[in-house]
Amino acid sequence: MDRRSFLKNAGLAAGATAGAASLAAPALAQGKRELTMVTTWPKNFPGLGTGAQRVADRITNATDGRLTVKLFAAGELVPAFESFDAVSSGTADMYHGADYYWQGKHKAYPFFTAVPMGLTANELDAWINIGEGQALWDELAAQFNVKPFMAGNTGLQMGGWFNKEINSLEDMKGLKMRMPGLGGEVLRRLGATAVALPGGEIFPALQSGAIDATEWVGPWNDLAFGFYKIAKFYYYPGFHEPGAGLSCGINMDVWNSFSDSDKALVRDACLAENNYMFSEFNYNNGAALDTLVNKHGVQLKEFSPEVFDAIGKVSEEVVAEVANEDDLSKRIYDSYIKARKEIGGWINTSEGAYMDARKRILG
Amino acid sequence: MDRRSFLKNAGLAAGATAGAASLAAPALAQGKRELTMVTTWPKNFPGLGTGAQRVADRITNATDGRLTVKLFAAGELVPAFESFDAVSSGTADMYHGADYYWQGKHKAYPFFTAVPMGLTANELDAWINIGEGQALWDELAAQFNVKPFMAGNTGLQMGGWFNKEINSLEDMKGLKMRMPGLGGEVLRRLGATAVALPGGEIFPALQSGAIDATEWVGPWNDLAFGFYKIAKFYYYPGFHEPGAGLSCGINMDVWNSFSDSDKALVRDACLAENNYMFSEFNYNNGAALDTLVNKHGVQLKEFSPEVFDAIGKVSEEVVAEVANEDDLSKRIYDSYIKARKEIGGWINTSEGAYMDARKRILG
Repeated sequence: MDRRSFLKNAGLAAGATAGAASLAAPALAQGKRELTMVTTWPKNFPGLGTGAQRVADRITNATDGRLTVKLFAAGELVPAFESFDAVSSGTADMYHGADYYWQGKHKAYPFFTAVPMGLTANELDAWINIGEGQALWDELAAQFNVKPFMAGNTGLQMGGWFNKEINSLEDMKGLKMRMPGLGGEVLRRLGATAVALPGGEIFPALQSGAIDATEWVGPWNDLAFGFYKIAKFYYYPGFHEPGAGLSCGINMDVWNSFSDSDKALVRDACLAENNYMFSEFNYNNGAALDTLVNKHGVQLKEFSPEVFDAIGKVSEEVVAEVANEDDLSKRIYDSYIKARKEIGGWINTSEGAYMDARKRILG
Repeated sequence: MDRRSFLKNAGLAAGATAGAASLAAPALAQGKRELTMVTTWPKNFPGLGTGAQRVADRITNATDGRLTVKLFAAGELVPAFESFDAVSSGTADMYHGADYYWQGKHKAYPFFTAVPMGLTANELDAWINIGEGQALWDELAAQFNVKPFMAGNTGLQMGGWFNKEINSLEDMKGLKMRMPGLGGEVLRRLGATAVALPGGEIFPALQSGAIDATEWVGPWNDLAFGFYKIAKFYYYPGFHEPGAGLSCGINMDVWNSFSDSDKALVRDACLAENNYMFSEFNYNNGAALDTLVNKHGVQLKEFSPEVFDAIGKVSEEVVAEVANEDDLSKRIYDSYIKARKEIGGWINTSEGAYMDARKRILG
């Protein structure tokens, strides 16, 4: 998915920006401190927008309002993609978003959300929570005066909706598919035409034949967009976002102003939402996939090894190139790839083998 | 693993029990309330004992000690398996443990930890956090005056250590394997002899040939126990605990005495640890598996479809029988199986397919 384009309109309509400076100063009244959280999501967008709201509410509720986090959806205080600058400069106190939106600031940011053929949600959590991930992320974000936490995950995204079967690499050539970012670059190297389209423009483009295929998020969000009405084939798995981590970034001066106790509370509020949001995607994607296949007759198709393996190999090249940007990028890339090998090796051996066997047995 | 037997000695040595009544009354001094947490784990047992300590610390730290949770390891205040009764009666305020230990109280308790061929960690979280799981668990635990939360997960456990190859069902017949609980019953129906042994007795029993095989937990804990020195074959995947959820149970009167704010804080502390502990197991299992295979030359073997499919089919029978206990068990079983189908269907299609493809591509 490219939340960027989906959010463009919201961002452009940010008439409320003028109020930022006055709102950003912590409001100290009756012993309560008000913190502003900006987001890259439309208000109450299922999963992402509601998840940002829950992070705000968790902090507010657990402190009985002593820290009251007020959420501003994309465009309400600043446009979606100014969230990072707003927090970096102190115009806002914190953001909830996807850190790969900040790759214009530093090329290594996508490693803390998702990269093609990268870590799944559980692998990313293990790298961040226990491995070297958090320290590297702290080092990166500190350059921008931000303290980052993982605070949600979409899980693996689907391969996308296609109006024809994809049986070979030949079928990829000339294919016009909506896919942004590094995933789009992978498709281009395979001879496809990757295009970026705002969320609201995908349905008519696919319907008119202006594009042949699109990815969006997963069954839960895709069902709501109604793609099943105009595209017959729903391919899995996605390669471009194997488990998109969402983050809460806090202005470093605000973070440093917290007591040790409040630091622990805020950290745990983010960690709690990190668990909860991934559960929500897994639960709702399960029910929605069932509806798509059994109620709407969607043809669920797995990419052939020929196609997916080619995608995978090109993905490795594209991601490795990004990592050669500078010393920090190199260290992040090396640590990420090592985590993928070790943690991924364990997950293949444990849940991977179990899920394959259980599927075989239960049908 | 059978934490029960591992903990027996600690439980029997519970000389400190006499102090329980006086310690359990909330200590109100200097505006601080002291809460006692008992556990089924030895002090600082890696992953489980340290996880219980982290739950206690998360609550203490986030409240700046206003709620100070004092942890008592197995046997320090009450024996491990009296933790439930201690919390139910109010002798202690909360426990951290594995709810399948309470199946003597109600047969349906294993569904909230792990059952053979059951939910993985992510599936269990989705059922509990978003599906019907928490409401059913609340209904079950309320009968015992307990409010339960998920607060950790071991992830999938390994199939175990064997001193010979298991190539067919014939090889299972007469096999003496250490495996407790419902998993042990599955093995018995396949003609094996399932035995229960305390953790400390497994190594000598396997070394002397008194048993032919054992399961324990996963690479991280198994490496520490040194099984690689005496058993050559390490089989995967385990079927008996596909993602053992650990729980924090709170005395209902204590829970009801909390403000809404403290309820939110305690709930999120548990949810945060739920995410963190699973990460810790994934990370450390990854590194330990690498060590076992590449440093100690352990032969990692996958169960053949013939063997695993037979185990799977018998598991389904054993679990279904447990569920026929009463109306609540039936509702829990039905909801659990429905969650496995829907959420599991999604995870097979998403991460399952992705992990298989990534493994094929990366080797």
